[in-house]
This record gives sequence, structure tokens and C-alpha cells, in this order.
Amino acid sequence: MLSFENDYSEGAHPAILRRLAETNMEQLPGYGTDRYCADATEKIRRATGCPDADVWFLVGGTQTNQTVIDSITPQYAGVVAAQSGHVNVHEAGAIEFTGHKVLTLPAHDGRIDANELADYCEGFFADANHDHMVFPGSVYISFPTEFGTVYTLAQLEAIGEVCRQYGIPLFVDGARLGYGLTAPGTDVSLQDIARITDVFSIGGTKVGALFGEAVVFPRSHSPRHFLTLIKQHGALLAKGWLLGLQFDTLFTDDLYGTIAAHANDAAETIRTALRDKGYSLTFDSPTNQIFVTLDQQTISRLSSHVRIGFMQKADEYHSVMRICTSWATTPEHVAELISLL
Amino acid sequence: MLSFENDYSEGAHPAILRRLAETNMEQLPGYGTDRYCADATEKIRRATGCPDADVWFLVGGTQTNQTVIDSITPQYAGVVAAQSGHVNVHEAGAIEFTGHKVLTLPAHDGRIDANELADYCEGFFADANHDHMVFPGSVYISFPTEFGTVYTLAQLEAIGEVCRQYGIPLFVDGARLGYGLTAPGTDVSLQDIARITDVFSIGGTKVGALFGEAVVFPRSHSPRHFLTLIKQHGALLAKGWLLGLQFDTLFTDDLYGTIAAHANDAAETIRTALRDKGYSLTFDSPTNQIFVTLDQQTISRLSSHVRIGFMQKADEYHSVMRICTSWATTPEHVAELISLL
Amino acid sequence: MLSFENDYSEGAHPAILRRLAETNMEQLPGYGTDRYCADATEKIRRATGCPDADVWFLVGGTQTNQTVIDSITPQYAGVVAAQSGHVNVHEAGAIEFTGHKVLTLPAHDGRIDANELADYCEGFFADANHDHMVFPGSVYISFPTEFGTVYTLAQLEAIGEVCRQYGIPLFVDGARLGYGLTAPGTDVSLQDIARITDVFSIGGTKVGALFGEAVVFPRSHSPRHFLTLIKQHGALLAKGWLLGLQFDTLFTDDLYGTIAAHANDAAETIRTALRDKGYSLTFDSPTNQIFVTLDQQTISRLSSHVRIGFMQKADEYHSVMRICTSWATTPEHVAELISLL
Amino acid sequence: MLSFENDYSEGAHPAILRRLAETNMEQLPGYGTDRYCADATEKIRRATGCPDADVWFLVGGTQTNQTVIDSITPQYAGVVAAQSGHVNVHEAGAIEFTGHKVLTLPAHDGRIDANELADYCEGFFADANHDHMVFPGSVYISFPTEFGTVYTLAQLEAIGEVCRQYGIPLFVDGARLGYGLTAPGTDVSLQDIARITDVFSIGGTKVGALFGEAVVFPRSHSPRHFLTLIKQHGALLAKGWLLGLQFDTLFTDDLYGTIAAHANDAAETIRTALRDKGYSLTFDSPTNQIFVTLDQQTISRLSSHVRIGFMQKADEYHSVMRICTSWATTPEHVAELISLL
Repeated sequence: MLSFENDYSEGAHPAILRRLAETNMEQLPGYGTDRYCADATEKIRRATGCPDADVWFLVGGTQTNQTVIDSITPQYAGVVAAQSGHVNVHEAGAIEFTGHKVLTLPAHDGRIDANELADYCEGFFADANHDHMVFPGSVYISFPTEFGTVYTLAQLEAIGEVCRQYGIPLFVDGARLGYGLTAPGTDVSLQDIARITDVFSIGGTKVGALFGEAVVFPRSHSPRHFLTLIKQHGALLAKGWLLGLQFDTLFTDDLYGTIAAHANDAAETIRTALRDKGYSLTFDSPTNQIFVTLDQQTISRLSSHVRIGFMQKADEYHSVMRICTSWATTPEHVAELISLL
Repeated sequence: MLSFENDYSEGAHPAILRRLAETNMEQLPGYGTDRYCADATEKIRRATGCPDADVWFLVGGTQTNQTVIDSITPQYAGVVAAQSGHVNVHEAGAIEFTGHKVLTLPAHDGRIDANELADYCEGFFADANHDHMVFPGSVYISFPTEFGTVYTLAQLEAIGEVCRQYGIPLFVDGARLGYGLTAPGTDVSLQDIARITDVFSIGGTKVGALFGEAVVFPRSHSPRHFLTLIKQHGALLAKGWLLGLQFDTLFTDDLYGTIAAHANDAAETIRTALRDKGYSLTFDSPTNQIFVTLDQQTISRLSSHVRIGFMQKADEYHSVMRICTSWATTPEHVAELISLL
Repeated sequence: MLSFENDYSEGAHPAILRRLAETNMEQLPGYGTDRYCADATEKIRRATGCPDADVWFLVGGTQTNQTVIDSITPQYAGVVAAQSGHVNVHEAGAIEFTGHKVLTLPAHDGRIDANELADYCEGFFADANHDHMVFPGSVYISFPTEFGTVYTLAQLEAIGEVCRQYGIPLFVDGARLGYGLTAPGTDVSLQDIARITDVFSIGGTKVGALFGEAVVFPRSHSPRHFLTLIKQHGALLAKGWLLGLQFDTLFTDDLYGTIAAHANDAAETIRTALRDKGYSLTFDSPTNQIFVTLDQQTISRLSSHVRIGFMQKADEYHSVMRICTSWATTPEHVAELISLL
Repeated sequence: MLSFENDYSEGAHPAILRRLAETNMEQLPGYGTDRYCADATEKIRRATGCPDADVWFLVGGTQTNQTVIDSITPQYAGVVAAQSGHVNVHEAGAIEFTGHKVLTLPAHDGRIDANELADYCEGFFADANHDHMVFPGSVYISFPTEFGTVYTLAQLEAIGEVCRQYGIPLFVDGARLGYGLTAPGTDVSLQDIARITDVFSIGGTKVGALFGEAVVFPRSHSPRHFLTLIKQHGALLAKGWLLGLQFDTLFTDDLYGTIAAHANDAAETIRTALRDKGYSLTFDSPTNQIFVTLDQQTISRLSSHVRIGFMQKADEYHSVMRICTSWATTPEHVAELISLL
């Protein structure tokens, strides 16, 4: 059966699989000390315009968020996130497990608002009793957000400005970073992300890799002994070169951007078809995730031909569903889906 | 200067101080294994109508909430609380420090609503993806609430019913329990609390003791090795009899109720005066905490004669202030405050 | 350069890589809900003789130990391990990070002794003050141990007996399980491990997989909501089928045992050569890890031709070094190493 | 029955109780912001010779150790302590509960050895693989130790020197500090402790207070937002002045030293009697704790007249027992005990 359920339904982009096969018999040192991690680091430094960036390779998204947030957030503090943020909703309490509260701001189609962040910080420090409260100790945003939306450069700059004003590090969860950077109409580049944030991740799992997330500290301000912290959080891969190799491949000839743009294009085609056919898009996403509110009858009809994601009930008769494209989405898949709609 | 800032501004009720002095030279075993803890336990069992209740004595409120919630909430779960709940707002992240998320429900003058709790639980378990989310693993309510309001018996029963339905333990934070139980018009008794909840605390610190919170498991379902858990949380007092002695005194001839009723009466007198003078009460509290919205000018004028608590800004020109009575509040204090208003 | 540094220096056994390639374009559901995980589970159930076993697939060893131990050890308790146990020495405090103390017993060539375990437990519970101490809440042993040694069946049975007597779950870290089960002279089978323990892991990372550890609860006593606990610990792989596929391959036609036996054979050949040449073996290991005490001159000489692992200084002039074989070790490698010795 | 079971069997020194009574009706602000805490801080600054010292007041010993160690030890690190250290043995895992391993060194009558500490640190950082291990992140010693012994000034200086060399903070647990500082023959002063350590506690609970431990950062290097950390650890007392008042009293006219010297004198008298009567002292303690190895018959005989502490079995027929004196020990008690021996 056809599936548009998510962007991590298949293995890896063939170029990645090929390199895994080619290098399979090489004897390499473990834990990220190999040449492929070094190469990938170099390429990411170049792509981000940060020659001194620290780059680390972890396996999964929740693991990455947990390790990074726990390491950059002071002990007496929590992480500020959108109410809809992945760390607040879908990580089984992985952040609180490390001792930190998730402090929530309203989500505007998945985005936090710089003014609301500023108000929050100002209100917090104005409160005479704030010593009994959880300090805002880091800010988490996802780019693109959990609803496929993106921040504009101006929005990101404004959030970064508030963070700098209060001395709070800004972390961008880039589990689907590529899709955001190549979204039609976006004015945000990888260099912008690197310039504005204190740390961000470049997601591989959902952008063509078998697995893997690169964590970038653009100005080389990794937490002290970050490798030990990664190990302590159970997040250090023995055969670390598997990560290096994948990111080296993704950042060769901008395969990362190519994969993301391909998926965005497919999504745009589907979105246009949905609009043409009068469907109601739940969010105005320019990336590879399409959220559409469907009635139960349509959902039933589709479900015997194609798998799409259930997000949540909208009302008694409708649900919000997600259609997701990826590197593996073919024009034939798209055409078939559209014909089914 | 006169102070109505809170109900823990003075030492202890004289009867407590007297017993501390009388017993000072007795040699007693530590960690709650003494005769006074045994006596206090017996009296609390009688007062709650639970002959098998487990009773433990801790020092402070946050410590009690932290130790109890961490011990009754499964590892994969969080604690459900009102947005305004003390554990969510004013405990410096003590709950998250132990690894558990605080899952918030809307606060209605400090109260959660049984229907909203039921909807939350139903929605949670209906969500196909709930394995990636934080399970509701316990429910925390405060009685009276942080805003001095109380639940009716029907409201408590309804919350208890939802908890039982989902197999989730209900914990009542009774830091100011006495004031709630003796509030004019309340239909909730200590026996009701014991019957409906799985565990609750009886606050001493804010009801006439130097310090101390009794934790009651009415049906003797203490977590396994709870003494060790108390020790592990840094909450075990060496000279445990100091707690037993205080609760023994508070539960002799219902001193606990007498103290609370006295403070409630004083508050009622002040509240009547406030209403008569046209002040705007922020919450409809029947207990010893009075929340009143004052303009800056009035606050300034009062502040040179009496200390009252600042809660939060209401708008540019007004703030919510708290007036708090206690066992130590005299008719003269009340009269003086009223004349100042 | 030739490397005998460890058993995770190459990618994966070709059979695994082949299946990854073959299935790369299949669309599969995430998080272990796919058919390959189901197949692997079935095969592991058959191999362990436990038709009801719960089987879970995690990515790495430290992560597995952390998640399992935190989930089976009561909150008031620690995990008992050999002084030399991986969890005590080489996991960057991953166990303590989850709140549990590692309680150590003496290591006898890496093994704990059932009598010493019994004495420890008896002493602990005999101690009148043990409520202020960390309870033994689980027992961790590695099979084979960190020094390549194995337990006899009688030793394992005796440890299991003590655990049952005190109601403490026994966890076997099988990061290199295959090498232990196929070691010359061992009398322990996979079914024995399953019968004697409460939970154990089957290591893939070090036995031919790209990565992956299977966690087996032989009598289906997984901790409640274990999937959520895995997620909470950051240990849930999105493309879970990558794990299922690898273990399905390893447990088809006993590839797992074949790989391990191959490496053990190679190690035995090297060990014989070492003995013949008068080298001093540090431990009497029958598995794929050879520990040998070398003088600095020999180490220097070897280091320009072959990479072997440095373990620790033995004295001013000698160090304990490790030679490790794997599925990828060829007769040519072995011959070359022997000629260098 | 007479009791020499410990030094926290009675309430408080009468001078403390008197001041609690005198100030009972004063209205004071909470959480340590009152004038008595300020006065006590001033007096402790003077006594330690550290005009800029930060002084904090907590309730109990385990709580203090937990809060301090968790706050000064980096996230990737553990705390080094003697095998016999209170934090390693008798705090129910309170340190590991906060995520830190206790790294143990051999105990020499309760003391660690500076050379062994230096060797440990040197060995750790020399180990090529130490990124996978728990870093030494703080050093904990108790003065006097759990066995009543003290460090000489030279020993303390040497330990402090190693700590400075490796940039590791040194924490002295002074639960019984007074007894150590006034021990016959000690050459260590309070100023020495303040000069050599990074943080230390001054125990009140076991030296005449109802409860309370003062935490001193002699060079005002408190961890950031330490008050919030105290609150987060459940260790912030609402009526903080109760602590300030007690320490103000203890540090007025050196009551603290007077109490301790009194108890030490009583212990010395008992020790001399024990020696004269041919008893076998287990440790050579010059402070208020006497450890003596007794046969079961003697223990039985004594137990019907006097309570002393059981420490541990020495062999089948003997146990190590503890006799403890305090401010409340009278010459009559001592004479009675001696006559019983």
C-alpha cells in the first residue's frame, strides 16, 4: 500500500547506502574519532560558514534534544518552548527526566513569538518572588515547526535578540531542518541559523539518512566534556563513523538540500491539488508536511489505498491528518495520491 | 510594623513551644521512632477515622510534595495539577528535578474541574500515539487552593471518582488544610479527605507549628520503603520527635481546628470590612487568605503601616495583594488593619 | 594498518548489509512496530525457548544498561555489580544519572561470586540501620565479562538462586553474549540464560551488526509501559525496523552463533601462539578478547604494524593490552599478527 | 534509661530554646531573609575570618550534603569520598539520586589520604579512555570523620593542594565540626577550614541545636542562584529565622566551641576509664564519639542500663559499639556509665 505517513518510512537515500557498502570492511576507530566524522564536520563547518563550529553526531531526535537541553540549561532552570513543541508533547517526558521543566509559551501555528518571549522573561525577572520559580534557562524552537511552518528571518532574529538580551542560549531543533531551509519563500539560510543560534541540530533521520542528528555549536561553545555527557545520556554510538559517513554524504554536493527540495516540491504539488479540490488545509505549511482536516468518510475511503498520519480529532466528524513527503516520494506516488483525493 | 504578609511570620503556637521546652531534656531515639511520633500518629488516625493509616512526618511543604509525588507517580508518568498549583509555579522545579513532568489543567480560582480531568484522561488514552507522551500518573490538588478557595465535597468526590476510574492516585496538598476544613460553609471534613484521597498532607508550618507536614496514607498504602525514600530525598529529620511533638499537640483537643478557625474568623472580619469599604476581592476565598486588587496609591499608603503580600500585577495601575491571618492574629491587629483600609 | 583493537571496527556482516539494501525502499511503520521486528522477536523466542518472551530492540550498550537497570531497579535501591563491571567503570555514570547507585562486589577475573553476593545481601538486611542505606535492587553481571571470562552454569545458577531468594531481579549484560555462548568449554546455553535471568540483552553491535541490542524479558515481565520508558531515556529508534532486520538476520540459521564461533576460533589460534611464544596472558579468557601483559618495547614494536587496545598500566614497564577478534577477522589477519608477535 | 546513643538525643541547648521563646511572637520575613540569619552570617564570617563568605542555612545533614554536592559537582562528574564516607554509606543514595556517582578512595580510620587522592586523579587523567568514565568533580571529606577521627592541618593542606592542582572543589562535611575543632591535640582551626576548602558545613543538629546546618562558601563563590537550588532540592525552610536564631546563639560567645569542648571532655573521661578497664578502642578518636569493640555478654549486660549505638559486627562474638557524648551529657551520666562498664 502507498504510504505518505511520514518522512522516515524508508531506509536511506541510495547514495548513503552505497557508501555504507563501500566502506563496510574498513577498520575504523569508534565513538566519532574516525575520518568520516572529521570530513562531515569540515563540510558542515563550510556549509554553516562557521570554521570553528563544534559538530557532534547523535542517533535520534529525542536523544539529541534531551542531551543538548540538559547540557546547556542551568541546573536551576528550565527550557522555554512552544506549547506544541516536540519536547513538550511527544518525547515521553525525556526533558523532565533530566530534571528540567519545560516552560511553555503559546504556539502560533507551531511558532513562539519573540514579543511573548520578551514579555515572559521580563515578567519573570520582575516578579519579586522569582527565586522560588523555574528560571528560563534556554529557549527551544523547531525549524520547521511540528506543523511544518517556518519562521521568517526577522522572526528568528527577534527571538535571538531576546535570548541574547537575557543571556539565554537559543537551541533550534532541526530534525527537519532541510525542509525549512529549502521551503518556497523562506528567507532563512543555514548560515542564518548558525549565526543566530547558540546550538542547533541538523536532522538526518527524516531527511534521507538511516538515522543520525548532527549537533552544531557554531561558535565552538560546546558544554565542557560534551562527549562524556553524550555517553552519560546513553547517546554515544560505538560505530560513530556510520553517522559521519551519512552526514559526509548528505553534505557532499548539497545532497541534503536536494533531498529536502525534492520532498518540498512533491508536497507543493499535493498541496495545490488539495486546494484545487477544495480541501481545507489546517496549517499554512510550505514544507514537506501537509496538514489537512478531513471528514471521517474521506479518511475511511483513503485508508484502504494509502496510509497517511492521524494527528488529532478536529471535531466529532473531522480529524487533522498529515501527508508527508520525502526523498523517496516519486512522481508516480504523487499522481496516485492526487487521483485518490 | 504590623504584618499580614503570611501565616508563617511568627514562631509557633505557645502550646507547642511549651511542650518543646518541657520535653527538651528527654532522651529520644531519632528519625521518627520516638513515642511522640507514635502518639501523633494515633491521634491523626483517630481524627481521620482511619485506624490503619500510615503517617509520616516531614519538615516542609515543597519537600513533602516532592517526596510524595516522586514516590507515588510511576516512572513513565507525570502529575496532573492546576496551572496555578504550587508544584507547578512556586517550587523551583522540585517536581521536575525528580524526573516527573507537571501536566497542567486550567485553574478555576485555583481548582481543577473533574470533567476537565476526565476529558484529559479520556483524550490521552484515546490518542493512538500516547506511548510517546507523558502518562497522567497522579493527580495533585491543594485544599484549600493557592487562592484560598476550597472544593465542595461533591467536587472532591467527582475528582476522586475520575482518579479511581483511571487507577491514578489522588494527592491532596494540605499545607493549609485546617483553614479549608474550618472554612465557613465548607462541607468537607478530614474524614472525607481521608476517604477520597490516596495520600494527603496536613500542614503544620502554616497552621501554628514551627515547621512540619504530616503525610497520611489513609489505607496504609505507603510506597515501599518510604522511610528510605524520605531519606533519599533529603527530607528525614534527625530529631524526628520535634515533628511528632508538634502534631501531637496540634491534634490534642483539636488545637489544629481551633487555630484554623481563629484565623478564618479574623479573615472574615477583614473581608467584611473590605467589602463594606468597596474594595474589590480578587477571589472568593472563605479561608485565611484574602486576595484583594488594590491601586498603587492604596498600596503605597498601606505599605508604611502594614506589610501585606504582593502577588502579581493586575494591570498598569493595580496589583493583586494578599492579606493573611494566622493563630497569632489578634483582634487588635484586625482592628488596626481595618482602620488603615 | 592491521587492527585487532576491538570487535566493532568494521561495519556489519555482509548478510546484514545485503538485507538493508534489499529492503531499503520498503515503506515500514516506525518505532519497532514493523514486520521485521516481529520476525526477529519470534526467532529470539524460539532460540531462547521462551514462547512468551518480551523482546525490545535498542541501539547501544550503555543505553540498554541504563534503560533496563533504571526500569527494573526500585526507586529506593541500587544495582549490584562487579567492581570491574561496565556499568561501574565505563559508562560515564549513566546509571547514577538515572538516580541509582552501583553497589560493588569484588571482581574475580570480572565475575562476581554467588557466596559474596549472598553475604552482601544477608549483611545488608541484618544491619539494623539499613533503612538509611541503598538497598540492593537488582543484580548486573556481564556474560562474558569485561575481561572475556565466562561464568559456568553452576555459577550462574548459584547467582540466580541468591537473587530469587532475596526477590532481586538478575540482569545479564550480553553485549558480547554470542562469544560467551560459543566459547570452547562453556556449559551455558542461551536457554540457560533465559531460564536463570529476569532480563538479558543480546548484543548486536559487537557481534556483526551495524548496531543494536535486543533486550529479552524471558517470562514477559517487562516493566509497565516499557516503550515509553525507552522513549523517555532517549533510546527509541525511529526506523526501528533497522534493528529488527539485523536481529532477524542474526537469528536466521544461527548466523549469530556462527559469527561468534568464528571470532572465538581466531582468538584461540592467537592465544595458542601467544602461549607458545611465552607471552603472559593476563586473564584466562576463552572468548574473542585476549588480554596480554606486554612490555613497552614490544608494544612500541607492534604499534607500527597493528592496532591493539591499551587497557591499563600493569607496572612501570608493562601494560595490559587487548587483542580482539570479530566476524571480520580473516585467517590472513591472524597469520600476520602471529608473525608480528 | 541512660543513653549515650548519639549526640542528637535531646532537644536543644537551653540558650537556644530560650531565644526561640523570646522571639516567638516577632513577625519575621521567611526563607532566610530575616535579621537573625543576617546576624548569624556576620558572626560566622567573623569566626571564619572570611568577611565575604556566603552563608546559607539548611535543616539537615543529608540534605546539606545532597544540595551542596549536586550544586558544586559538574554534570559529567562525581564526588570523591572515603569508602566509609557518610555520603557513600548512610544517605540512602541521596547523592546518586541527584545524578552523581560517589567515587571512593580507601578510608584510613575514616580519612582519605592526599597521596591516594593525587594518584587517583593522576591515574584518571592519564587514562586514555577517561571520556567514558566519571570525572572526579568534587572532593568530600568529613571533619571529624564518621569514626570520630580528625585530620591534621598538614593532611588537610595536602588534600587542599591536590584539589587546587586539579581544579576540583573541596567540601568539608562539618556535621560535627565543633568536636573536631576542639579535639585535644588538633591543630586545625575554623579559619584553617575556611582557608583550605571551597565550601564546608557547620553542623548544628549534632552540636546543640534543634536542627540546622550552616553552609559556608568562604570566598563567596556560591553556585549561581543557590537559593533556588536549595528550594529545588526541597531544602528551604519557610521560617528560616529558626536557623538564623540558632546559629546566632551558637556563635555568640563561642557557645558552639563550649558545647563541643564539653562533650569532648566527657568523652575523654570515658575513654580513659575504658582504657583503664582494659577495653579495646576500635578507633583512636579524640572527639565525642567513642568506638569500642565489645563482646556480646558485655553488650547484653550494658543494654539493660544504658543505650549505646550498635555500629557493626566485628566477628561472631564481638560488635563495634559507639558511645556518644553531647552538650547534654552531665558528670553524673558519665560517672554512672563508668561504673557500669
